[in-house]
Amino acid sequence: MLAKQQRVIIQNVYPEVDCGHFAAKREQGELCEVWADVFQEGHGALAAVLKYRRWDEAAWHEAPLRYEDNDRWRGEFSLAQNSRYLFTIQAWPDVFASWRQDVGKKAAAGQDVVGDLLEGAALLREGAGRAAGEDAERLRELAGLLAGNGSAERRLRVALGDELAALMAAYPDRSRATDYDRELEVYADRERARFAAWYELFPRSQGRVLGGSGTFADAAARLPEIAALGFDVVYLPPIHPIGRTNRKGPENSLVAGPHDPGSPYAIGAAEGGHTAVHPELGTLADFQRFLDAARELGMEVALDFAIQVAPDHPWAREHPEWFYRRADGSIKYAENPPKKYEDIYPLNFDSPAAADLWQEMKRVLRFWIEQGVRIFRVDNPHTKPLPFWQWLIREIQDEHPDVIFLAEAFTRPKLLEALAKVGFSQSYTYFTWRNFKDELTEYFTYLTQSTVKEYLRGNLFTNTPDILPRLLQEGGRPAFKIRAALAATLSSLYGIYSGFELCENRGIPGKEEYLHSEKYEYKVWDWDRPGNIKDYLARLNAIRRANPALQYYKNLRFYRAGDENVLFYGKAAPDRGNAVLVAVNLDPFQAHETTLRVPIRQFGIEPEQQYIVHELISDTKQLWKGAEQTLRLDPAAEPAAIFAIRGWQFKDYEDPCY
Amino acid sequence: MLAKQQRVIIQNVYPEVDCGHFAAKREQGELCEVWADVFQEGHGALAAVLKYRRWDEAAWHEAPLRYEDNDRWRGEFSLAQNSRYLFTIQAWPDVFASWRQDVGKKAAAGQDVVGDLLEGAALLREGAGRAAGEDAERLRELAGLLAGNGSAERRLRVALGDELAALMAAYPDRSRATDYDRELEVYADRERARFAAWYELFPRSQGRVLGGSGTFADAAARLPEIAALGFDVVYLPPIHPIGRTNRKGPENSLVAGPHDPGSPYAIGAAEGGHTAVHPELGTLADFQRFLDAARELGMEVALDFAIQVAPDHPWAREHPEWFYRRADGSIKYAENPPKKYEDIYPLNFDSPAAADLWQEMKRVLRFWIEQGVRIFRVDNPHTKPLPFWQWLIREIQDEHPDVIFLAEAFTRPKLLEALAKVGFSQSYTYFTWRNFKDELTEYFTYLTQSTVKEYLRGNLFTNTPDILPRLLQEGGRPAFKIRAALAATLSSLYGIYSGFELCENRGIPGKEEYLHSEKYEYKVWDWDRPGNIKDYLARLNAIRRANPALQYYKNLRFYRAGDENVLFYGKAAPDRGNAVLVAVNLDPFQAHETTLRVPIRQFGIEPEQQYIVHELISDTKQLWKGAEQTLRLDPAAEPAAIFAIRGWQFKDYEDPCY
Repeated sequence: MLAKQQRVIIQNVYPEVDCGHFAAKREQGELCEVWADVFQEGHGALAAVLKYRRWDEAAWHEAPLRYEDNDRWRGEFSLAQNSRYLFTIQAWPDVFASWRQDVGKKAAAGQDVVGDLLEGAALLREGAGRAAGEDAERLRELAGLLAGNGSAERRLRVALGDELAALMAAYPDRSRATDYDRELEVYADRERARFAAWYELFPRSQGRVLGGSGTFADAAARLPEIAALGFDVVYLPPIHPIGRTNRKGPENSLVAGPHDPGSPYAIGAAEGGHTAVHPELGTLADFQRFLDAARELGMEVALDFAIQVAPDHPWAREHPEWFYRRADGSIKYAENPPKKYEDIYPLNFDSPAAADLWQEMKRVLRFWIEQGVRIFRVDNPHTKPLPFWQWLIREIQDEHPDVIFLAEAFTRPKLLEALAKVGFSQSYTYFTWRNFKDELTEYFTYLTQSTVKEYLRGNLFTNTPDILPRLLQEGGRPAFKIRAALAATLSSLYGIYSGFELCENRGIPGKEEYLHSEKYEYKVWDWDRPGNIKDYLARLNAIRRANPALQYYKNLRFYRAGDENVLFYGKAAPDRGNAVLVAVNLDPFQAHETTLRVPIRQFGIEPEQQYIVHELISDTKQLWKGAEQTLRLDPAAEPAAIFAIRGWQFKDYEDPCY
Repeated sequence: MLAKQQRVIIQNVYPEVDCGHFAAKREQGELCEVWADVFQEGHGALAAVLKYRRWDEAAWHEAPLRYEDNDRWRGEFSLAQNSRYLFTIQAWPDVFASWRQDVGKKAAAGQDVVGDLLEGAALLREGAGRAAGEDAERLRELAGLLAGNGSAERRLRVALGDELAALMAAYPDRSRATDYDRELEVYADRERARFAAWYELFPRSQGRVLGGSGTFADAAARLPEIAALGFDVVYLPPIHPIGRTNRKGPENSLVAGPHDPGSPYAIGAAEGGHTAVHPELGTLADFQRFLDAARELGMEVALDFAIQVAPDHPWAREHPEWFYRRADGSIKYAENPPKKYEDIYPLNFDSPAAADLWQEMKRVLRFWIEQGVRIFRVDNPHTKPLPFWQWLIREIQDEHPDVIFLAEAFTRPKLLEALAKVGFSQSYTYFTWRNFKDELTEYFTYLTQSTVKEYLRGNLFTNTPDILPRLLQEGGRPAFKIRAALAATLSSLYGIYSGFELCENRGIPGKEEYLHSEKYEYKVWDWDRPGNIKDYLARLNAIRRANPALQYYKNLRFYRAGDENVLFYGKAAPDRGNAVLVAVNLDPFQAHETTLRVPIRQFGIEPEQQYIVHELISDTKQLWKGAEQTLRLDPAAEPAAIFAIRGWQFKDYEDPCY
């Protein structure tokens, strides 16, 4: 129901996620544009303001809301800080503006306005009551002029003058203002929440000794190479002690040999749990040195946050009340019948002791934040309650707004979206299983152009320790280049799991899983193995850094390519100062030649004008003319092309000095 | 924020207008379909119910909500009565169903389930605690079986059996249920709110004596003819005494002669105001006889509700506090500078006495409802506050749910829609100014396929006393047939203003207004004037009554016609038992031949099958085959065709008796 005195209607406010239940996501430094329908009955003038504040500020700031068209109003406020902001809208009938408008029309039509001027004088005196000091005095003076004996012409000039309009606008009568019935939230993340290239590695696989564990020091030694490839975030699967009870052996076998390291996701042993580091990797001080090394190279470290424990985890001993238990009191291992996970105990968020459990999870995150970690990749968030995540992320971000959470949520679409709504900064997506033109176009239009874009940032992983996609298994090196080019340009956020750069594609037959997965084994890699695509990745990341268009998420647009195997799309920076077009042959096996429909008008280029096309991967230039262009992409050579386009500036002369 | 224990997420509920601020509109006798996303973390089973009640019932009824696909659930409840309904959703983790599912999978995989059976027994005992009588006893008995010493096979049969599933489903554990955080409203109007043909007439123009007023008796004498044309609602502009001060003369001139009747919208004189009838039309008893005559012919009478008064209205004397007043205390007439309306006083909904004014408006409507009127066409609702309308319509409909309100809102789109949201049953639309193919397609797709369809029913008027559209002025008789056919088939609600059937199209040059408008003059009409289209209107209305497809509003779909001047669309009844296709040549001047793409698959007809096409205006039949058909529409003959389509039933033999 509308309130009885709610004369101004405020509706259809943007941005607003699920009736204001959740925050929209933006980034620090942006202007937050706000739109709303604001109207009332009849034809009277309205005034409106956008009210906004940081969540921890007591008072609202105000910014103007201005009429655009069709009862739609627009305003904006600056997301100057990395913080959570609140905003709402207030609007009121602008009695003085209505009066001024009517008097102007009547005077223009030669009608008598004496009565109107007297009414106006009354409005001015009311305005003086709201004003103070000189302004109040001046308003009373002008009221006297309007009501006085001066010439009609002079009185009218005062009535319609700019001075009076400005004075009255400064002291509006808001006694009949309508407040929008909700306060809406916007979370302004730091830029890295929107623009980053992730590199995932197992520290224990970074060593040089066969059959033994690599260390933080080994991993630190690899950082310069990863930085040279252009990655921003180095993400580590769990680094904690690994349980021994029911430890998994190679190929996820049920029995581990005495020297098998076990899965790092079986967290916890006698040496400690979620706040300890695995002794084989080093000490906490070694981890600190690893963080420092990354920081010095301009990279950040992301840790895995996996809420599950091995039977040997201290919590199992100290807090059996946090777990699912059998009738005999013993703790249950994880199951998804008929599958069993005997090396893992899940935590029971329905237990009477769940409140303590929530606090402990917060304590764990705070521990790593104190070590300097600011990015967490959360394992299986879709098996823990949504209200828990909403609480935890807010608790952490209210203290440390720069903390970024990536949801590993390869789950049902509604649940994946809900995790983003409750606060995850980034989300894994179904990119991994979108290979062909129609499905890529549909999925990325949905991600970047539907309302989902307001709260979900898709981080496109080409592969993960759990997923070696079919296309990579079958398509070899060209497929790796195709998927890298797509991931790096479809989204401003993408990631690879190490081995991708080596085109490692040995899978378990019939499955999308790695053979000899390093989840269960010590591994040593030759990081310069022949056939690697390290130069290609370095080039892609360099292009991303040089082109602001590729650093934004919602600016993806698809264009027409004639061939079913060629995807053609583009991105432009918000200030239009930079734009790129990307064409990718999605077929790793065959070359395809196609016509492209280049959106030249968007670059300010006329059909009859030549323009410069700079292909950024090969760093070659061509002159093109007209929207229809033919392109051949051979996966054996280059399956993708990234074009920067510039009109050909032409002047016969400039600033002639003769 | 989500509540801490809100384990089940309920979102994206349909129907829901503006986050539940406003009611969705449906009709009595319908099933109200309800959809929602219902999900939680993980893979556990859920259960959900739809809760609903009439607004004046104390307790909720419950109907099942069933899983459809992709975490979307569906239910429905019957809108058995003409009333306002509330509904909401409750969902909870179905612990027993999850347990049953897991045990089934484990057993199928040959795993040990003894521990599970013991846990199940505990669930059954809890269930017994929620149950009563025999059911409780039986559950305890079954719990004993599960936990007992019987064979594993037998215990499993009980665990997975239908009896146990049904018993446990009857006594669900809702202790951790989530309630959707809103109660949503649906208003179930009677059918006439959705399906009606309106006929507007000035009673004073129904007489036979030149220069004098027709009466209610004269108007009653015309009702059999109007009923024979097939109209359902006879709508009368204001029937109240007309003010004399500043009365308008012919052609809206500023000075009326002594015998000029004035505009009926200048309501109120010495003889009375909004609850009086104009003495020239007769007495209240005469009006009652007019109502009775309409009722006997199966028609209803709609009255105009115009909140504005002439200077002579009793309210101006008795309640000067309800009006806008000058500094000297005199009442202001209406203005929209530079236009002046000296014969009208607007009411001031901002005055301190507005509460009394609201009550008086309710009293006026109640007065006419007591006389037997159940339909009100509201004049200029967009100049009165939206909260007022929301309050008034709810106050009236809570007493008299069968009252229908039509909003005359030729105003800005957002305001027009907002009036429908706050409760108006029907709305005037921009149909009057949508003449051509693209604009008709776009506008009616928006009206009938966007969310607007949930709360706004467009009543398509071909003309009004204020609007003689250009196309009718220029296009003559063919244009009248075109607009009638469009209005009668694009919407289940349409109306004409009398004179339309006579193809009266004398306009004021350069304006969309009638010359010699009967708003300001006594008129006498020859209702059988040559060139009239009464037979055509009677045929259209008969087709509407015979074809349920044309009695629904949201079922409009556009199909392809090759020619830019031919609009092709169709409607099917919700039960698919009736469907029509309509083709209209929108050009009143020239014949056009075009190909139509007939949606034969929707009629269950294959491309190689013949089908019967029954053109309902001419009552002729043809055999067609294939989707592509050629049609010629000559406006001089028949500008529109309405097709009923039936597949050709063919069987070599049936029920052979040999």
